[in-house]
Amino acid sequence: LWLENRRLAVRGDIPDPVPAEGEALVRVVRAGICSTDEGLLKGLYPFTGVIGHEFVGIVEAGPDALRGKRVVGDINAACGTCPTCRAGRRKHCPNRTTLGIVARHGAFADYLTLPAENLFAVPDGVATDAAVFTEPLAAALEILERVTVARTDRVLVAGTGKLGQLICRVMAMTGCALSVLGRSPAKLERLGDLAAGIVTAETLKPRSYDLAIEATGNPDGLALALNAVRPQGILVLKSTFPGAVMLDTTRLVVDEIALVGSRCGPFDKALALLERHEIDPTGLIDGRYPLERGLAAFEHGRRPGALKILYDLS
Amino acid sequence: LWLENRRLAVRGDIPDPVPAEGEALVRVVRAGICSTDEGLLKGLYPFTGVIGHEFVGIVEAGPDALRGKRVVGDINAACGTCPTCRAGRRKHCPNRTTLGIVARHGAFADYLTLPAENLFAVPDGVATDAAVFTEPLAAALEILERVTVARTDRVLVAGTGKLGQLICRVMAMTGCALSVLGRSPAKLERLGDLAAGIVTAETLKPRSYDLAIEATGNPDGLALALNAVRPQGILVLKSTFPGAVMLDTTRLVVDEIALVGSRCGPFDKALALLERHEIDPTGLIDGRYPLERGLAAFEHGRRPGALKILYDLS
Repeated sequence: LWLENRRLAVRGDIPDPVPAEGEALVRVVRAGICSTDEGLLKGLYPFTGVIGHEFVGIVEAGPDALRGKRVVGDINAACGTCPTCRAGRRKHCPNRTTLGIVARHGAFADYLTLPAENLFAVPDGVATDAAVFTEPLAAALEILERVTVARTDRVLVAGTGKLGQLICRVMAMTGCALSVLGRSPAKLERLGDLAAGIVTAETLKPRSYDLAIEATGNPDGLALALNAVRPQGILVLKSTFPGAVMLDTTRLVVDEIALVGSRCGPFDKALALLERHEIDPTGLIDGRYPLERGLAAFEHGRRPGALKILYDLS
Repeated sequence: LWLENRRLAVRGDIPDPVPAEGEALVRVVRAGICSTDEGLLKGLYPFTGVIGHEFVGIVEAGPDALRGKRVVGDINAACGTCPTCRAGRRKHCPNRTTLGIVARHGAFADYLTLPAENLFAVPDGVATDAAVFTEPLAAALEILERVTVARTDRVLVAGTGKLGQLICRVMAMTGCALSVLGRSPAKLERLGDLAAGIVTAETLKPRSYDLAIEATGNPDGLALALNAVRPQGILVLKSTFPGAVMLDTTRLVVDEIALVGSRCGPFDKALALLERHEIDPTGLIDGRYPLERGLAAFEHGRRPGALKILYDLS
């Protein structure tokens, strides 16, 4: 699935990637469409090449310990030697490539390459359909790496899309008082009884949440989420969207709110949760396509109420 | 000094305020002009009345322990009974009045009133000209209440105005590697050897500071300060300015930056620093006016290079 000039095309003429030193060759068996992929189509980054970064694959060439194994992979390939890497912030390496996003062909293809150190073996007890959620689940878990959530906290998750659903499941684990901001009845229904409260733009009580998490993917959702945060509360930003956003920074100052940007997270913890079946994301799967029907898969993902669409290459 | 419809006027016909129950009557002896006062003239809040919130006064009516004493005062008068107050966030009380800013006449007058519990006696060793800086110094100290600053941190203070100067002095105390972003040679000179580095918009190295503090008072300064922060670094916002600002929230997410809004701070700690002479703010005083020349004082404050302008009523 090749992106060029914001146009996506199924192409059969792309050579398989060749692993560089320290890299493994991975045969993709499952891949998921993420909102960031939709963002790339809208010009979030000027990327040309194979997109896709959520995957499960089989290692065909690489270290003995991984060969033949099912793996998932951290999407940020760092240089390992720059000051940022040496400071322990490898995912922020300024020289990094990012699978299917920045300067590295991605997972919507028969094969991908990643540094062997980025790969995590999938435990036997984790189904491939669950493991393909490791990357977004890790991104949801990253919130707990950045902020402390108490059982007494009133938490609002804004957005019931693919990532919002996973964030709700992670937040529910903390035992906090969870509310969800969403419009789509179909998507809200997928939450089951995870959220104690469901609010809309009309019923949202301003300044009433200790923590709000923005995963709506649009500036209006961001404004609502900010409005929801109490003085000295925290707003976690998960959405990336093209373009700058108007923000009332005076509100941030006067109400002493902290805005915390959050991106990729811990794969090991995500896999551990999946292995213990504390979170089952497979209920979010709404479609399954061969790569050849790549564009139809994207179309499906845009239908109202649709959540995760997978490519099945097995 | 009366503000109405964004116009400031010296008026002699304003009755002295009458203290409500629990409030003290304070005769103002010194008051300082803050950038927020300029903001009020530009419509930051729809305030009509006596402006001014930085002051030293003598308690004329109030509790025995304070009567006749020199005092400074926390500008936020909370209700004390709402959920926010009971949660210990009195400065964010939704029912609060704020001296010279929201629904309470301020300090650019012969008398003001504040709840007695808001007042702090000025230690004998602190000159009135120093004590008048207690409120903005407390606001600078609030940064250290919100973020931890290590001696190894690279810190950028953006802005060399009245508040920026105090923030630089507070940050220098931490022993961090301090740089300052500023344009005015006259204001940079007032920093002496506090800052190891002086940078401009042209020489600023992007993504190179662990912590940046925005005190420029304008959106361009905010953009520069954000640009200065390294991945997973922190940007503290101190400036309030009218209107919303364009912000690249995708940068916040991808670089996992935390934006921390910060407003008023601990008066007790500010007074303690002044008493121990760890910070001497009196070098920032550039003018001294009687209230009758109130407008001339504001004009003086707008001159290039001018810092703190005081009203002297003693």
